[in-house]
Amino acid sequence: MDIAGTAAAIRGGDRRALARAITLVESGRADHRAQAVALLSALGRDRQALRLGLSGTPGVGKSTFIEAFGMLLVEAGLRVAVLAVDPSSARSGGSILGDKTRMERLSRHPAAFIRPSPSQAQMGGVARRTREAVALCEAAGFDVVLIETVGVGQSETMVAEMCDLFILLMAPAGGDELQGVKRGIMEMADLILVNKADGDLLPAATRTVADYAGALRLLRRRPQDPDGFPKAMPVSAVSGAGLATAWAEMQTLAGWRRAHGHWDGRRADQAGYWFTQEVRQGLLAVLDREPARGVMARLAAEVGQGTRPPEAAAAEMLALLGRGAPGA
Amino acid sequence: MDIAGTAAAIRGGDRRALARAITLVESGRADHRAQAVALLSALGRDRQALRLGLSGTPGVGKSTFIEAFGMLLVEAGLRVAVLAVDPSSARSGGSILGDKTRMERLSRHPAAFIRPSPSQAQMGGVARRTREAVALCEAAGFDVVLIETVGVGQSETMVAEMCDLFILLMAPAGGDELQGVKRGIMEMADLILVNKADGDLLPAATRTVADYAGALRLLRRRPQDPDGFPKAMPVSAVSGAGLATAWAEMQTLAGWRRAHGHWDGRRADQAGYWFTQEVRQGLLAVLDREPARGVMARLAAEVGQGTRPPEAAAAEMLALLGRGAPGA
Repeated sequence: MDIAGTAAAIRGGDRRALARAITLVESGRADHRAQAVALLSALGRDRQALRLGLSGTPGVGKSTFIEAFGMLLVEAGLRVAVLAVDPSSARSGGSILGDKTRMERLSRHPAAFIRPSPSQAQMGGVARRTREAVALCEAAGFDVVLIETVGVGQSETMVAEMCDLFILLMAPAGGDELQGVKRGIMEMADLILVNKADGDLLPAATRTVADYAGALRLLRRRPQDPDGFPKAMPVSAVSGAGLATAWAEMQTLAGWRRAHGHWDGRRADQAGYWFTQEVRQGLLAVLDREPARGVMARLAAEVGQGTRPPEAAAAEMLALLGRGAPGA
Repeated sequence: MDIAGTAAAIRGGDRRALARAITLVESGRADHRAQAVALLSALGRDRQALRLGLSGTPGVGKSTFIEAFGMLLVEAGLRVAVLAVDPSSARSGGSILGDKTRMERLSRHPAAFIRPSPSQAQMGGVARRTREAVALCEAAGFDVVLIETVGVGQSETMVAEMCDLFILLMAPAGGDELQGVKRGIMEMADLILVNKADGDLLPAATRTVADYAGALRLLRRRPQDPDGFPKAMPVSAVSGAGLATAWAEMQTLAGWRRAHGHWDGRRADQAGYWFTQEVRQGLLAVLDREPARGVMARLAAEVGQGTRPPEAAAAEMLALLGRGAPGA
């Protein structure tokens, strides 16, 4: 692969070069990995998009929201990339963005780039590839990179660690249904958008916004945020209501963080986080390979049955791996 | 060390043998570690105490609560061990149970055993030693092992992974102060006890109980719990009000979990969790030692400054450790 040529093509806005580069970072082959690292180093990090994380459970209208919100952005003259993180696709083989038909207008727009979620083996791999795809899209000059994920917990944490703003898309709900939201996910949200604030559901959506606003007030105030954030707002992906206001709020928050030094600080923290994660996962990868994997399973079964204390089983495992007993 | 003799002494209720054994598991020396593993294997796991995790921020009246609650238990004929987990003591050199004077009656009672928190270097070490001290106290025949920690997040998760019931002790608060509670900690709680429900603070405590009860209703219902749990209740460590009721609720919940198979399941899960944690920490320990530690710091600084991409820095680090590039 011509690293310098590919880097120049990506920076010049060549969409096919970008798509091939994303395929490269998704590859598990060792030679592809080396090329991916070289390409990312060649591209540099001088271009920055606004990275928006977007989470919401199935049925909340995420595809419709992305279609409508993405169109709002491209019609305002912005270039928009959409990436998806779906850890469950490893099992189903499917992709949450396989339904590009639901984003018919956006997917055909020349200023938009939509990349479905790849099938992946494990969360660590998903994280790395998505993060590297984000870096590729930034180098390609996109203004906004939207990183979509499903509401399953671990993937939200991962997306929150690679975005500038984290948006939670929710459906109108009765009070009882609020309990379905995991606290940790709500704690990550910069903006909670209650979708379907139209027609019959408008009163329920309005109530739900008030409920979330109340719940958000219970959360710790974050020093990187101006007054009033995190915030809950109603939107309708179908009617378009509230989308421009939501975008204005995102820009306000992003602008505030830039002006107060929290933007660069967060990006530096995230880069450090991913460096450490990569090293740790590289070290722990031995446990996912045979023969260690089989021995771990056998020892874990004995520990679960109570026939062997955890610390004795761990000492045996570490001795097998040639690492000796764990230090103090 | 005479492993068999020490094991017999501990099982026979010899308090000095127990104290020495806890000192042994707290030691970082390799020969002590081997003896600790041998001792834990020799003791077996046939005796089970009720393991109560107790968390609460400083000022909430934790020492007073433990004194009063512990006295209630020993006066009911139960043997009670109190262990402390304080990750901050590594810095301060102090111990949250250094103030045994505040538990004057309990610390002198023959059916109670109080062990202050040791000074520790890192959370992994704190976790292992506390968990092993719990196993030693169980083998020594205690009926209840109370594991106390401070409200700082990571230590709560750790304590929740080694206890049967997790109790959160809170102070009466105005509505605004509720925001200080981390969501994740509330999600772990089986019982929230609002202390100081006496005198002038009684109305505030009653309101706070209602606030927490409302917040708990927002949380996901857990399949291992009967109706009504997790629960918020008022107590007064000073007057003793509510303590017997709180104890009755703990027994109800523990009994329900035993009857429905969740008790053994949770213990097996916890043992498996600690086995995996020990192995992972043993593998990652290399990063805390020189020369890896220094190289990590240098690379992290470059990554934070943006002069090197995280993936390139990670690849260099793993190559240095002889692990090659991270796998797919």
